[in-house]
Amino acid sequence: MTDSDAVLRANETFYAAFAAADMAMMTAVWASDLPVAVTHPGTRPLIGRDEVLQSWRDILESASAVDIICTDPQVQFHGDVAVVLCQEHLNGYRLSASNTYRLTGDGWRLVFHQAGPVAVETPSAAASSSVVH
Amino acid sequence: MTDSDAVLRANETFYAAFAAADMAMMTAVWASDLPVAVTHPGTRPLIGRDEVLQSWRDILESASAVDIICTDPQVQFHGDVAVVLCQEHLNGYRLSASNTYRLTGDGWRLVFHQAGPVAVETPSAAASSSVVH
Repeated sequence: MTDSDAVLRANETFYAAFAAADMAMMTAVWASDLPVAVTHPGTRPLIGRDEVLQSWRDILESASAVDIICTDPQVQFHGDVAVVLCQEHLNGYRLSASNTYRLTGDGWRLVFHQAGPVAVETPSAAASSSVVH
Repeated sequence: MTDSDAVLRANETFYAAFAAADMAMMTAVWASDLPVAVTHPGTRPLIGRDEVLQSWRDILESASAVDIICTDPQVQFHGDVAVVLCQEHLNGYRLSASNTYRLTGDGWRLVFHQAGPVAVETPSAAASSSVVH
């Protein structure tokens, strides 16, 4: 398996844990003994494993499943660090996400996640635009 | 100078270039021969040096200066990669930013920037909240 395949598989596992609202799986995705942080949409960064995992507990504990998929993942490598840029489709909203992984003895583990909303052109705006131009 | 000081200085240079709308300075902040990307607020990621620098040209060319400051920067190291998490105050709006730097022969250079809006409690909401609780 190439490094890129391995990172993309780690990224798929992250979204599988998110979609299944599986806190044990989500915990395993994150690096256990490295600096970690998360910036959820509309919020300040949360720093450190305790805060990061508590935020996921808060998000996942009320759900039996989450309507989320990740599309168009692209990986950039910086040595043992890989940044995956992708689009999240969450409950009908679109977000731009970056997921930063680090290669550990246990494989690629997540050390930082940030997601923020994307302004999406509505079908009516697109139709209007195609008439005007 | 510690690594942390060096990274924070690079981060200050990034915001100085942004605030001064100085495209030459902004160009120098970004790594010249590494994978780079940027996710501006509300948008999809832009991948690669040409797209990244063109986006900054588009943002900066119409301004003689930009009302932006960065507060509360916090650094996390992953070997030769450093992630700075901070709050941006841009034209009265607040954003959560992450700036990922890599140590190169020329010092710490930016390889990824993402910023997204933060939902801020308004003074009236805060006042109302303090009455209720």
